[in-house]
Amino acid sequence: MSKSRTSQTFRPPVMEAARWVSGKSFPADKPLIIVSQAAPVDPPPEPLREHIAEVALNRPEAHLYGPVLGLPALRTEVAQQWSQAYGGSITDQNVGLTSGCNQAFAAVVSSLTNDGDEVILPTPWYFNHKMWLDMQGVIAVPLDTSAEMLPDVTQAEALITERTKAIALVTPNNPAGVEYPGELLSAFYDLAKRHGIALIVDETYRDFDSRSGAPHRLFENSDWSGTLIHLYSFSKAYRLTGHRVGAIIAAPERLDEMEKFLDTVTICPNQLGQHAALWGMQNLSQWLAGEREEILARRAAIEANMPVLEAKGWRLLGLGAYFAYLQHPFDIPSDALAQELVDAAHVLALPGTMFHPEGSERGKQEIRLAFANVTADQIKVLFDRLASYRPKP
Amino acid sequence: MSKSRTSQTFRPPVMEAARWVSGKSFPADKPLIIVSQAAPVDPPPEPLREHIAEVALNRPEAHLYGPVLGLPALRTEVAQQWSQAYGGSITDQNVGLTSGCNQAFAAVVSSLTNDGDEVILPTPWYFNHKMWLDMQGVIAVPLDTSAEMLPDVTQAEALITERTKAIALVTPNNPAGVEYPGELLSAFYDLAKRHGIALIVDETYRDFDSRSGAPHRLFENSDWSGTLIHLYSFSKAYRLTGHRVGAIIAAPERLDEMEKFLDTVTICPNQLGQHAALWGMQNLSQWLAGEREEILARRAAIEANMPVLEAKGWRLLGLGAYFAYLQHPFDIPSDALAQELVDAAHVLALPGTMFHPEGSERGKQEIRLAFANVTADQIKVLFDRLASYRPKP
Repeated sequence: MSKSRTSQTFRPPVMEAARWVSGKSFPADKPLIIVSQAAPVDPPPEPLREHIAEVALNRPEAHLYGPVLGLPALRTEVAQQWSQAYGGSITDQNVGLTSGCNQAFAAVVSSLTNDGDEVILPTPWYFNHKMWLDMQGVIAVPLDTSAEMLPDVTQAEALITERTKAIALVTPNNPAGVEYPGELLSAFYDLAKRHGIALIVDETYRDFDSRSGAPHRLFENSDWSGTLIHLYSFSKAYRLTGHRVGAIIAAPERLDEMEKFLDTVTICPNQLGQHAALWGMQNLSQWLAGEREEILARRAAIEANMPVLEAKGWRLLGLGAYFAYLQHPFDIPSDALAQELVDAAHVLALPGTMFHPEGSERGKQEIRLAFANVTADQIKVLFDRLASYRPKP
Repeated sequence: MSKSRTSQTFRPPVMEAARWVSGKSFPADKPLIIVSQAAPVDPPPEPLREHIAEVALNRPEAHLYGPVLGLPALRTEVAQQWSQAYGGSITDQNVGLTSGCNQAFAAVVSSLTNDGDEVILPTPWYFNHKMWLDMQGVIAVPLDTSAEMLPDVTQAEALITERTKAIALVTPNNPAGVEYPGELLSAFYDLAKRHGIALIVDETYRDFDSRSGAPHRLFENSDWSGTLIHLYSFSKAYRLTGHRVGAIIAAPERLDEMEKFLDTVTICPNQLGQHAALWGMQNLSQWLAGEREEILARRAAIEANMPVLEAKGWRLLGLGAYFAYLQHPFDIPSDALAQELVDAAHVLALPGTMFHPEGSERGKQEIRLAFANVTADQIKVLFDRLASYRPKP
């Protein structure tokens, strides 16, 4: 009997980690510090909640099916703001809305690949990307990154075969935090274009980039839509994780293909979430700038506290977006370490093994801290706990 | 170059039909009658809209990620109400929530099949089921139905091969409307169990069944979860189509497998929609009974008006749920007819070709009317228009 598609992959890491703490209790003077999931734990600001309530009450159509590719007004707003932000020409026909950015990736992959095809992913990779490729019978080809956690174009080119359909980059990166330089993205774009494959760029954490201005110039290419597929999430910017709204920017013909997938898998993105995203885009740019400042302050707190950990042999490999990506100094694999840290340090973090191919030695030495939900004060506590941790003999 | 998964299937029929009327205008004295999509066009009742607004304002966690398999309180409510309705033992661990019932089907199929496997579907079939199987490399094996639009167990058994992983039934049926007798479902259950394959029963239109009491006794089998996978949608009952909430009732081990798919494709169902469904289940049973009465009244209006069409050679093949399924008397294929009807009769309906394998002769003679949005008066107008229609010579 053949095995099912879902049997080709592993259980969801975030849920797996949640099981490590399930049923356990932690004392009030040393509560569990959760740095496992990349998500805000505060709700959207009150004016946005009020807007959602107002739409629920007074906009009948917001309760009914909408177009598969999303709310026309939101497609237009994204096209306008993206054209301005990236200095390129992006129309509403280039924009498709999805039930979150994971679904955006799934739709893109299903429109590009079939069984036995290949997609190149820098490692450490985002596990849901790996999971979708597994479930679709597509080979995730790992592209090892440098000491700076950056992928190399020449190494990538050596991995391209006739079955390669795309290279997928995440910047700012999940899990490694690192912000890919614009020139690196241009080089990957040129590589993809030269080989006639797609370059997928997932910019879920774009709004928390520490750099100012456009993070890359890919949309300035007049023929960008022949190569580039850009992904975005409204979840982080406006704290809408529970609403499930993401976006794809691509050629209209590619979106027509993805429409088949999106229609069959969800029919349309939920309407209230799309109204929320639209209102956020139109009204919360100042507020979002403040959110970014706060994340950058927490990032600075990570840097400020690193010496405590470095003194114990830890190393900071990458930092940015919501993430600090660390190398631990112990002679135990990170998946065992992460579970030990729950009981010994009251810290829930995801091990590097979850972001690397099975058996990877590198993954065993790494650990991801998602710091969006810990204040600068808590970061100090977190680092002190990690610094005082010693493995059981 | 291999073709992509999306290239293995056709464009979404409902969107395709929407293109037939795009840019056209219709006079006020003969407006377009839309009977193409199976969806309420009125919003949920005001108390439910008020509840959604209240949750948006005052329940911070309703804006954040929830469990992949859904809101625990909704899982429990479904388990309790289903146990009562079907006379079986269904626990919250048997319930998974999804972003609509299409996604429920997609998750189930991905947990059961792989490339080259087979799933048996009675024809006419629900097109999104066919599309998902196409995109997953799974062969949709058509099971022709009788003159009463019912599938036959002996015929189904003859189609089972070693690659068959499931039989998927929709009752009340989309597109044919027919309500499958409980004994027929029991016979299919026995067949599936005997062959060690799954029986998927999609009961999206359950709340509009004309029969009273449980529509089948499958959940009374103590080992039902070894064979049966039940699907449901909250969209029709509570007019929540734009919120995307559906459900799967299955064995916990099967749901664990599907969790991988659901996490990767949407992370979790949107939270406000789940709160809406929960409130609907707890507060709208009386209201829903009224909705059912209204749908049954419209169904009666279809029957009452049929003689007008029968006099012109049309035949009623199936009636129930939201659908009247008709055989037309003309010597042109239904896909051409459906497009002609837009201009000649100002009627938008889906042709039988959309519900049958490509090239099917039967599909060319059939047409589906989704009557949930047309009043009894409008049904009379609709039938008069169809009765006076003559193909262009």
